[in-house]
Order: sequence, then C-alpha cells, then structure tokens
Amino acid sequence: AQGNDPKETVESNDAQSTGVAGYDDGFFIAGQLDETDDDGNEKTRHFRLEIGGRLQTQYDLLIAEEGEDLDLARSRFLIRRARLNVTGHFVSPDFTYAMQAAFDRGNPELLDYFVNYAFEPGTFEGRLGQWRVPFLRTEINSSGSLLLVDRSLTTSVFGEGFDAGMGIHNNYKKSPPFEWFFGVFNGTQTDLEVVSFDDANTPTFFYPSVVGRVAYNYGDIKGYSTGDLKGGPLRFSLGASGMTQFGLQRDNESATKATVDYILKAHGFSTSGAFMLATNQDGEALTDQNLFVTGLFVQAGYFLSEMIQPAARYSRVDYEGDDELVHEALGGLNVYFWGHSLKWQTDAGAIIVETPNDTDTAYRLRTQLTLSF
Amino acid sequence: AQGNDPKETVESNDAQSTGVAGYDDGFFIAGQLDETDDDGNEKTRHFRLEIGGRLQTQYDLLIAEEGEDLDLARSRFLIRRARLNVTGHFVSPDFTYAMQAAFDRGNPELLDYFVNYAFEPGTFEGRLGQWRVPFLRTEINSSGSLLLVDRSLTTSVFGEGFDAGMGIHNNYKKSPPFEWFFGVFNGTQTDLEVVSFDDANTPTFFYPSVVGRVAYNYGDIKGYSTGDLKGGPLRFSLGASGMTQFGLQRDNESATKATVDYILKAHGFSTSGAFMLATNQDGEALTDQNLFVTGLFVQAGYFLSEMIQPAARYSRVDYEGDDELVHEALGGLNVYFWGHSLKWQTDAGAIIVETPNDTDTAYRLRTQLTLSF
Amino acid sequence: AQGNDPKETVESNDAQSTGVAGYDDGFFIAGQLDETDDDGNEKTRHFRLEIGGRLQTQYDLLIAEEGEDLDLARSRFLIRRARLNVTGHFVSPDFTYAMQAAFDRGNPELLDYFVNYAFEPGTFEGRLGQWRVPFLRTEINSSGSLLLVDRSLTTSVFGEGFDAGMGIHNNYKKSPPFEWFFGVFNGTQTDLEVVSFDDANTPTFFYPSVVGRVAYNYGDIKGYSTGDLKGGPLRFSLGASGMTQFGLQRDNESATKATVDYILKAHGFSTSGAFMLATNQDGEALTDQNLFVTGLFVQAGYFLSEMIQPAARYSRVDYEGDDELVHEALGGLNVYFWGHSLKWQTDAGAIIVETPNDTDTAYRLRTQLTLSF
Repeated sequence: AQGNDPKETVESNDAQSTGVAGYDDGFFIAGQLDETDDDGNEKTRHFRLEIGGRLQTQYDLLIAEEGEDLDLARSRFLIRRARLNVTGHFVSPDFTYAMQAAFDRGNPELLDYFVNYAFEPGTFEGRLGQWRVPFLRTEINSSGSLLLVDRSLTTSVFGEGFDAGMGIHNNYKKSPPFEWFFGVFNGTQTDLEVVSFDDANTPTFFYPSVVGRVAYNYGDIKGYSTGDLKGGPLRFSLGASGMTQFGLQRDNESATKATVDYILKAHGFSTSGAFMLATNQDGEALTDQNLFVTGLFVQAGYFLSEMIQPAARYSRVDYEGDDELVHEALGGLNVYFWGHSLKWQTDAGAIIVETPNDTDTAYRLRTQLTLSF
Repeated sequence: AQGNDPKETVESNDAQSTGVAGYDDGFFIAGQLDETDDDGNEKTRHFRLEIGGRLQTQYDLLIAEEGEDLDLARSRFLIRRARLNVTGHFVSPDFTYAMQAAFDRGNPELLDYFVNYAFEPGTFEGRLGQWRVPFLRTEINSSGSLLLVDRSLTTSVFGEGFDAGMGIHNNYKKSPPFEWFFGVFNGTQTDLEVVSFDDANTPTFFYPSVVGRVAYNYGDIKGYSTGDLKGGPLRFSLGASGMTQFGLQRDNESATKATVDYILKAHGFSTSGAFMLATNQDGEALTDQNLFVTGLFVQAGYFLSEMIQPAARYSRVDYEGDDELVHEALGGLNVYFWGHSLKWQTDAGAIIVETPNDTDTAYRLRTQLTLSF
Repeated sequence: AQGNDPKETVESNDAQSTGVAGYDDGFFIAGQLDETDDDGNEKTRHFRLEIGGRLQTQYDLLIAEEGEDLDLARSRFLIRRARLNVTGHFVSPDFTYAMQAAFDRGNPELLDYFVNYAFEPGTFEGRLGQWRVPFLRTEINSSGSLLLVDRSLTTSVFGEGFDAGMGIHNNYKKSPPFEWFFGVFNGTQTDLEVVSFDDANTPTFFYPSVVGRVAYNYGDIKGYSTGDLKGGPLRFSLGASGMTQFGLQRDNESATKATVDYILKAHGFSTSGAFMLATNQDGEALTDQNLFVTGLFVQAGYFLSEMIQPAARYSRVDYEGDDELVHEALGGLNVYFWGHSLKWQTDAGAIIVETPNDTDTAYRLRTQLTLSF
C-alpha cells in the first residue's frame, strides 16, 4: 500500500501474492495470499473485489385528468438510477462485503454497506451494516431485474428501504428450500441523529424495529428475480414477513406490518404478487392495533422469444381510515438485449384515486434503458 | 458475482472468461467471454472498465478596486475539481458507457452517466443518459485540457452544463471531417422534480430543449483539446450550434441560443474562439425573439518547448438590455509535466465591469495543478 | 481510453504497456509503459491504482443521568464510517495520489484528494490538495487503527479535520527519526466560499492558517498506528505541533493552538497521550493571546494474545474561561480477526461534565466492527 494511503494495512511476516483481473459476470480483481505463520503453517487467504454500476435512464410522462380535460403533469428525462457498487470477499470467500452508492437525480447517498459472514454457508449466516430491509419480496428483488419499469406503488407505502442493522439468515437471496431471515434495524432511516426520549423516566435499552421473513421455495427458483428469463419447469416460492416498530411505542404509537407473497415461473411464464397490511397502535397496550392500510399487487409476464416479454400488473392500496382507494393498472413490453444487464422496458397505464366524493385518474408512460455492468 | 451482490447478473450456459488489467492511457480491467449458444454458435463478448480521476487544486486570489483602494476579495485554496470516473465498453466495443461523479468543494453530484451505441461507428451513433450538452465548443472540451486555468467567463453565461437527454451524432468528440450532433434534453438541470403546467388547458406532450451542432474539421485536428501539444501542420475546425428551450414557451418565455466557434493549430501554436448570442421571447409567438446578451472570446497559446506554453485570452459579455459590459483579459503560463495528465497552469489578469455610471475593475491570479489519472 | 471518455488522455508516439492486478495489502492495478522519446531514449513509466474501503458499523448507546434517574439518550445502529478510497502512483513511484470519499450517515463528502511528490523520498516531499491537517497525532492516525472505538473527545475540541492546502515534510506518516511537517491551509473547512474583509482598507494578500509539527522517533515505531500489534522491543515517539489561524486577525480574533504528544510501544504494550491548549486573541496585537481551553488524554492497551487487547483511556477538557471541566473515562476490549483490517472493538465508560453549580454524568457503550479492505 502507498505511504500516504488513507487506509491502514495488514503486515504479514512472510506472504506471497498472486492476482488476476477480468470480467466474469462483473469486472473483478482477485488475489491470493499464501501466508506462513510463526509455527510454519501455511494458509491461503482469498480476496476479491468487483466493481459494478447500474444506469437506468427513463423518459417519464404523466397526464392527469383535471375537470373535463387532460393536463400534462410531467414530461422529463430521468436518471432513475445511477449506481456504483463495490462488492467482494475478504480473507475468505465466506466473508463478503458490499457497498452501493446512489447518484440518482443528483443526490448522492449510501444505500448498501454491509459485511456478511457465512458461519455455515447457506445454513447460518450473519449480516451487519446497512442494506435493504428484507421485508417485501419486491424490495429484496434487485431494481435491475424488475418485471415492469419500476416497482408496484404498494412498495412506496409498505416498503422499508435501506436501514442500518444486523440479521441472521440462511442466504435468503439465493432461495434455499426453507428460507429464513431475522433481524433488528434502526427503524428510522430518515433520522439517524440523536433520538431523545424526553417522556421516558426509566432507562430502556433497546428500541429497534424487528423483521422476520420465511419462504418455501419449490424447484430451482430464483425467488428474487422476476421473469422467467432462462425458462424451465414449474417452480414457485411462497413467502411471509412481519415487522414491528417498537421505536414509537413510547407515545403508544407502535406500528406493525405484515405481508404474504408468491412468485411462480414455468416455461417462460412468470407471475408474482403480494398482500400487505399495516396497523397502528390504538391504545396503551402494544397489542391494541388498528388496521389502517392494506395493499396488494399481482403481475405476470411471458417470454414470446428469448428477447421479448410482454407483462402486466395490477396494484391497489386501500386506506381504511381515510376511505381512499388507489388502483394502478399497467401493461408493458420488455426487450432483453443481454439478459437483465442490458434491456429496454416500457410500460403504460392508469392510476385511479377514489374517494367518497371524487375519482381522479392519471395516465402514465415510462420507457427505460437499463445497463448493469 | 457474489451471492449478496446488489447487482443482478447474466447467466450463460457455457462461457469461458479471460482477463487482463494494467495501465494504457488509463487504469483498466478488460475481459473476454467466449460463449456457445444453444445452437452451438460461438460468440466473443468484449468488456472493458477504466477507472480514472481528476484533481485540480487551485490557489485563487481576487482583488477588487473599491473607491480608490484595492481590497482583497478572496484568497483561498480551492479543490476546483475532484472527480472520479468509470468508463468502458460492455458486451461490444461499440456499446460504451461513462460515469463521472464530482466531489468538488465538498458537494458530491453526478455529472456524466450515459451509454453510447455506435450503430455505424463514426457515422451514426446514439447516446442516452446525462452528459454535458454539446452546445459550446469550450464545454465539450474536457476541463482537463483547457488553455488557461479555467473556461472563459462567457461559458457561465451561455453554457448548458450537464443535462439528461438523448442524441444522435457521428462521434462528434473525435472531430470527424463533417461533425454533427442533434439531441433533446430536459433543459432544466436544476429542477428535475414535477413540472406542473397550471396555465395549460391542452395536454402538451413534449417540452424539451433541442440542441444541434455541426462543424467542419480540416486536417487531423483534435477539436476538443486546446493547445497544440503534439505539434503538426495547419489544422482547424469551424463549428456552429443552436438550441431552443421550448420548455418555457407556456409563459411566452422561450429562449434561443446560438454560437459560432473555431479552433486552429499549427506547429505548436493554437488559437480558438467563439461568438454567442441568446434571445428571449418578447411576444406571443415563438418567433418574437429579443436579443438580450452576446458574448465572445478569443484565446491563443504557443509551445516554446515541449513543456512550456504561454497563453492569453480576451472575453466579453454584453448585456444589451441592461447596458452592462463585462471584459476579461488574462495571460497565463502552462507547464506540462506529462501532457494534459499532469500539468501546472497559472493565469492572471483583470475583469472590468462597465455600466453607464460606473466602471469596476478586479484583478485575479490563479495557479492550479492538474492530475488526470 | 474510450472515445466518449470524460478524461483527457496522454498520447505517446511509441509506447508499450504491461499490467498486473491482484491483492497485496490492498486491491490494485499496476502497469508499466516503456516509452521511446524522439531522441531514441527509453524510459519506463510506473502506474499504480489501489481501491479500498472502510466500513465501521457501530451500535451506540448513551444513557444520561437526569435528576435522580438514568435516561436513555440514544440507542442506535450507526454506519460510523463508510469510505471508498482510490490511491496509487502516477508516472513514477515518487508521485503519489490519494482520494477518499465518505458516505458516512448518508452525507457523502470529499475527505482526501491530494498529490504528494517525493523530491528526495523520506527527506524532502511536497503535498498539495485536501487532507487531514497534521496537527494532532490522533488525527494523523488513521480511523482504522484506533485503540478504542473512536478518538478521544479532545479531538473534537482541538482537531483540525480535513482542509485544503499545501505542505512540505519528510514523509511524516512513516515516522522517520526526526519527523517534520510545515504547511499552510485554508483554515476554513466549513466555508470555502468568498471571504470578504469589509473592514480591511489595505490589500492583504495571504490569510491562511499555518501548521508545523516535529517529532522524535526512537526505534522502528509506527507512530500513527496505536497498539503494538506486531510486538517488538521498546520504541517511542515524542511530538509537538503548533498552529496559528491568522485568518481571523482582522477582528483581532487570531487563534493559536499547540500540542505535545507521545506514543510508546514494547512487547505488546502500548501507551499514548497528548496535551493540547488553545488561545484566542485578547487585544489588538497578535501576541495578546488569552488561554481559553486545555485538554489532555492518556491511553494504554496490551495484547493478551495475538487477537485480544484490552485498553483504556482517560480524557479531560478544561474550559478556563467558562469554568467547565469535562472528563471521559473508557475501558475497552479489542478482538483482531485480521489485524486492523478486520476487528471488533467495544468500549464503555462515563462522561462527566462539571460546572460550578452542577455535575452531570452520562454512560456510554459502543461496539463496532471494522472492515478495511
């Protein structure tokens, strides 16, 4: 390492290093370090760094009904996602790390930065840092492998986004037969500054949100990639997640969310969907929960050829208390130039907002090129 | 790719990968992937990633006349540009990508993120994403190969900066004999949020700014690198660009800009310059345009030796309506340690602001080290 | 380099490039370029780029006494440091560069971006750009090799952080026997915008802060890495730094800071500490300085085995004028899985704030995993 390097380096008594670089499902640098420790034992250490990016450039058009006319509400080019990521393993293939920074829309921010250690690979692993809370299936699903241009509108209502915390799991993103995850998170993505509990007169030592998820996966399914790009026989996954935000309990304001979801693929056809609900505390006890919003979506797509996939989705969000119902129906067409790494997606449809007195409709069209290198 | 990698990867049935890394006008990782598809056909895919940066550290001094005295208006070290970029090609050398993030002055933001596909290399290419709008020659010119410490003051008046959009061209940055670009952009770099057209009662489906540029290039000129670093016989380029911002038409506020420019190099000598004008709509019709500002600059430099280049520039901006005239005259000296990649530039001069009642003068000195790796 | 590359490239008449990549105390790409100049002379140019990161994920608990009770003031997961860095050398091993960006807590910013040239390696070197001002020993010390979870609270009072400037030195971070640094900096990290001196009626051409540091290093000590990870005989370092901020002189507000510090290591034991003071101008002359705050800390640690190191620190800050005294006492335990590159640190203790009328106590617990790749 350089003399004026900001990083601190490991010193080894006797080490030999070999390396290689290239492209293998991602640009990489990999190296080995053969060490001899003080007792003469040899060990080989493994290091890998991958550099990747994702660019999603979108044209986004939104037209709203206003009275009897249609009004242009939005017409723009949008750098929907401008990502840079660095991932790999360090010392051992079982100790992995991932960093992802977003430069979307000109506001850089950290999305992922975590380490993952496989105590028993695929059986018992631990993760620490910041990453997307694995509550909704559609949020675990990479933004680079969505069935339509973007996620369902239910995601912005029920999703958890990126949060700092820790969890244990059995490599849930790889869809093992009985998949599970359990974790604790800050539960306050937007405010990581000092949280003061003025009204608390007893020390309370832990106020996190807790998240649990299980799924049953049948067949060799990739449960977190929509679309049946590679084809194959019938495969499916059934999942369920729950989370409770204890953090707001102090004002009798705890919140609970739950979801059940599925994905099914067969011979180029795929369908997936989910039902979600959220409750708010409505009394002094944590169990006095009041249902205030439910959501669901269902979507399906089919590969007409290796490259062409039409798809459609229906979503709805029902605000129980406010008597407001939002529907979205979208149809789309995807063209895969190089799998999910280089593809062009277009979708169009309507968003309808129903209230007791009024019904508003807006029409949208989005077309987006994705490059994931 | 790693199991907990944020990016989604391509799966190939049967692929062999080879790779290499090093320095060749930039640090790079390159790889090939030899694929056999289902029909037994072999294809070779090409991948390349380059990592680069640019650091421009400047000492900046500004002294203003105030009454009869000279006052120090500014004395500072400035991290003028702190860039990190990732560029390369993906699947084919004809499909290129580029990302550039700026960390200048502590405010990170995305500058470039685009893809470029050469349908016919050098003849017909398409570009999509965010990059510097190719309106002014001096803006297409990289900030790493300027003749003086920074661009002319006309650039801040007439330049378009970085914007999201799409365009077609014949590899304009490489100065083909008849160079052309045509594109559409958001035209609203500073506000990518919802644009509401409250006063519109008809749906209007496209409100972009459109930009066109042509140039004639004689000899093997690099039209977007000032200075004749390599020497050679007489070469020159003549260019013209126009743009109209339809986006503001709704309030009878469309704007139009035009420029003509040149660059000439011969035997170590170089000169370049441009004239620009901008009009504002001044009536109900799009054609009711009112000239409100003009600008011009001319600059020249000469290599006394391989490393030493004195240079000078005169710029003026004339605000027609406001009766204000701004001049800038600068002289400078450049020392090239390793071409444009490692050089030290110094310039000094005066800025004069003339109004009917007053003439203000300020003196500036800037000295800057550039590293582009 | 790519045609649509944002960076400008060096052209060489006749150059051959060879390269290598891997892991050697950091992921790297290195290359050589054998050039033949116009006179037929051969030169070999050396290039190296290293990519690294640092992730520190912390659980942070703070409990404050309020009246007779203890109150939870803070309980959170914290992405304490989320860094990405690019370092290396360019053209020659003597010309090094370093960039470090922080994505901590979701607010990306530039920390380091500088170049360093060794005119005489280890004897006379120059540095230009932005980096951590080498005033406090504990700030020169990388955040990846601290003895406890974070720096002493004296650092937030007396530290200078990252600033733009230039300096000369004899490779001070490598602890040569007689180590020295002298530099000038902006002195205004938080405000790099126009500084106007309204009350000055004479032009004044330079208003920087100046910093000097010297140290005597005995034995083969790494003076800027706490802890005696590798063991060895007695080694120590004694240092002293001073700085004056002339920038505020215009309002008779110049400030001066000074520190003396030490570090000693022997056979797995290490101790370090510092005394600091700061004065403010208290009259019209620059020499009318008034002491207003002093600070000190002392810390020690011992390796019980190759991996396990208990440690402790006492810090105090004494605000002379305000009659306020802050103490902090911490005990900690460090587990080194792979040197400083992968380690787990925990510390706990009390912060006591004494004023003439009151004594407030808070208790803290922090546990943090560090990965530096």
